[in-house]
Amino acid sequence: MAKNVGILAMEVYFPPTCIQQEVLEAHDGASKGKYTIGLGQDCMAFCTEVEDVISMSMTAVTSLLEKYGVDPKEIGRLEVGSETVLDKSKSIKTFLMPIFEKCGNTDIEGVDSTNACYGGTAALFNCVNWVESSSWDGRYGLVVCTDSAVYAEGPARPTGGAAAIAMLIGPNAPISFESKLRASHMAHVYDFYKPDLASEYPVVDGKLSQTCYLMALDSCYKSFCDKYQKLEGKQFSVNDAEYFVFHSPYNKLVQKSFARLLFNDFLSSASSIDEAAKEKLSPFSSLTNEESYQSRDLEKATQQVAKPFYDAKVQPSTLIPKQVGNMYTASLYAAFASLLHNKNSTLVKMSNLVVVYQPPCFPSVLTRETSFSLSNIATVMNVSEKLKSRNEFPPEKFVLIMKLMEHRYGGKDFVTSKDCSLLAPGTYYLTEVDSKYRRFYTKKAVENGVVANGH
Amino acid sequence: MAKNVGILAMEVYFPPTCIQQEVLEAHDGASKGKYTIGLGQDCMAFCTEVEDVISMSMTAVTSLLEKYGVDPKEIGRLEVGSETVLDKSKSIKTFLMPIFEKCGNTDIEGVDSTNACYGGTAALFNCVNWVESSSWDGRYGLVVCTDSAVYAEGPARPTGGAAAIAMLIGPNAPISFESKLRASHMAHVYDFYKPDLASEYPVVDGKLSQTCYLMALDSCYKSFCDKYQKLEGKQFSVNDAEYFVFHSPYNKLVQKSFARLLFNDFLSSASSIDEAAKEKLSPFSSLTNEESYQSRDLEKATQQVAKPFYDAKVQPSTLIPKQVGNMYTASLYAAFASLLHNKNSTLVKMSNLVVVYQPPCFPSVLTRETSFSLSNIATVMNVSEKLKSRNEFPPEKFVLIMKLMEHRYGGKDFVTSKDCSLLAPGTYYLTEVDSKYRRFYTKKAVENGVVANGH
Repeated sequence: MAKNVGILAMEVYFPPTCIQQEVLEAHDGASKGKYTIGLGQDCMAFCTEVEDVISMSMTAVTSLLEKYGVDPKEIGRLEVGSETVLDKSKSIKTFLMPIFEKCGNTDIEGVDSTNACYGGTAALFNCVNWVESSSWDGRYGLVVCTDSAVYAEGPARPTGGAAAIAMLIGPNAPISFESKLRASHMAHVYDFYKPDLASEYPVVDGKLSQTCYLMALDSCYKSFCDKYQKLEGKQFSVNDAEYFVFHSPYNKLVQKSFARLLFNDFLSSASSIDEAAKEKLSPFSSLTNEESYQSRDLEKATQQVAKPFYDAKVQPSTLIPKQVGNMYTASLYAAFASLLHNKNSTLVKMSNLVVVYQPPCFPSVLTRETSFSLSNIATVMNVSEKLKSRNEFPPEKFVLIMKLMEHRYGGKDFVTSKDCSLLAPGTYYLTEVDSKYRRFYTKKAVENGVVANGH
Repeated sequence: MAKNVGILAMEVYFPPTCIQQEVLEAHDGASKGKYTIGLGQDCMAFCTEVEDVISMSMTAVTSLLEKYGVDPKEIGRLEVGSETVLDKSKSIKTFLMPIFEKCGNTDIEGVDSTNACYGGTAALFNCVNWVESSSWDGRYGLVVCTDSAVYAEGPARPTGGAAAIAMLIGPNAPISFESKLRASHMAHVYDFYKPDLASEYPVVDGKLSQTCYLMALDSCYKSFCDKYQKLEGKQFSVNDAEYFVFHSPYNKLVQKSFARLLFNDFLSSASSIDEAAKEKLSPFSSLTNEESYQSRDLEKATQQVAKPFYDAKVQPSTLIPKQVGNMYTASLYAAFASLLHNKNSTLVKMSNLVVVYQPPCFPSVLTRETSFSLSNIATVMNVSEKLKSRNEFPPEKFVLIMKLMEHRYGGKDFVTSKDCSLLAPGTYYLTEVDSKYRRFYTKKAVENGVVANGH
């Protein structure tokens, strides 16, 4: 069986068009700090009429292949995670196939995975399992998480975002997974869903959704700690992981979630809880589970206790999610990319544990002599430069674009402005949807015909 | 690594409501034999307003667990393949979770796989790979393929159908897979897709779709034969497989496809082609690929050559697809279930090879002493009885139901008739979609509280 299977290379793409949360806040007439402190968000990326989940995934995939020097023939499996459906039968994966078809490679397994934000993690696990299975033919797997999160006008709108992340999967990876230390929690709940097929917007019960997130987190953390105890013969606490990476609908929920882990540690008398923390949390020890999800006082107390841990173990992974917004399936991996961006030089010097939610799992980040290294991934992703070179839109222009997109969603027989002036060279963009709903994309020319190779 | 991973158990469900193709043909004013001989179809199942892909998958899963005596706690992975989307974010898998949640089992990986009819095969491969991977925790995998194929009034309507098939996956299976003898062909084509999100009906280019099927078949067969030659050291021909099982949009395409394999064998001078066959096919040896897909004369000649092979190697797998119609992701497995139904007693006496398309792969069917046996699967599936006990609808009633379903698709705030009189005990059915699009299902009571256990 192939060993140390995991992520060899990554590329992150988000639209260069964004709006500052502070500006949106003022425009919406929201109280000052509602989006920036209340939600914990700095900025929000969005697709204009020339970009969508398909174009973003094409951009991320071609960029990854070019920048890491991977021949499209070397790909044996391609998996896409998304919950932004543009066609109910034809997968996003098929839109990526021309990249491989033109090299004569059509023997590529894998499809689209759909299950809200978890679809990307499912795609990743499927790829890892394939490399470990008897069906593996020695080629790389490729996973793409691509989503555009948009909401109807109202309180959910500032929790949007958009991105595509591509990951190359294979053995002897600098980022590999602890297969036995993994827990999932799946349940049938109507907190976030997209049943109105003619609309791009989801139906959301924000309060229920937040409680579901915390309940699932509790369930996974308990199950994870049980497995850890059995395998390692000792109790787990947040002290035992160097970093925690969370799926991030908005940063405030990440703060609350990490604090919730501390509350779990308190309830199980784990080593992360010192005397001072014990004192702060003991008034809440007799709350029922249901009460504990609703208690504002508990939330405050746990966040106080968690603060120093949060700054050290969580904050390094929050950069892109705070700057780009919710990216659904890509959110977790954007958080992970932020950690690599901020800490790659220290990560390579030690063996680290990183808890990833949702679902929690522990990929161990190891130092390994390989052509795919953490520092190379950080260099190629070039996060600072991508964030810096964005265009901030005024709210009026943002609202107009949202209206146009609403009108266009699911439509046919239109051409776009084909205005790619704001896009970086090498970016794919939508030019037309014809009378048979067929979608056409073009790639913005790269200067001198080459993309800088960061390998 | 777990050995001989494959299908341990199967259950087939299709609606008990159907229409005879001969009757539909007359009603539509089509020429006699257009549907029965032209398409090769006998009958077509369809969902009435109380059934859909979710209810069918619930029925198939609970029936499998009960009839084979599998505890819901023993399931560690659940994968759904479908291209009948009722929600763009919330997976069909989540609707199945209550079956497991009530036993306290929420730690179940797996999501929905979408890629036209291939989604079910992707789900199956994902489950098999999981059992072979380091992440396997010893529990069973469960795969569900569920689809309702419906078409707008017109020439495509008689190619509909509906079914859900559940398969239990684990090691030491009576049906296991040859992992190295497998070929796929994926390409970006607009032959069949569902871009009109507000409509249940697909956009179809029938002629292009048929050519695509044959091109993909050629590509896979060539790639498969190459792999066979490398691994087995000899040339493959249709002689080398006991049975061939095809994805079946309609039976005539299966006839054409199998004949196309014989043409491939002719072009590569394989052993299946005797002197008489060679003589019949030699006039076509200089056709270009494109010409060969369009030539009616070639089609006739290959079908003549293929006839005796077809009767022995393909016909045993055509029962359910001809009686139920296209089942998209479930179609291939309904064909496989037909083979088990017709040949389980001879299959267990030898080691067989079965080519499955799409994509072609060779699961070797082996005799093995196990509690899950081929004959038990055939007994539990009880195909004859299920086919016999159906209700044939007159065309006027069928058309009215299609109209009602069109109107209801994607809708909210309605209750169904709740009329389950035609459904078998233990069948799930839709009772209501509330103002928030939440869907409610009920199970038809089982007499005496038990379902017959075929184990």
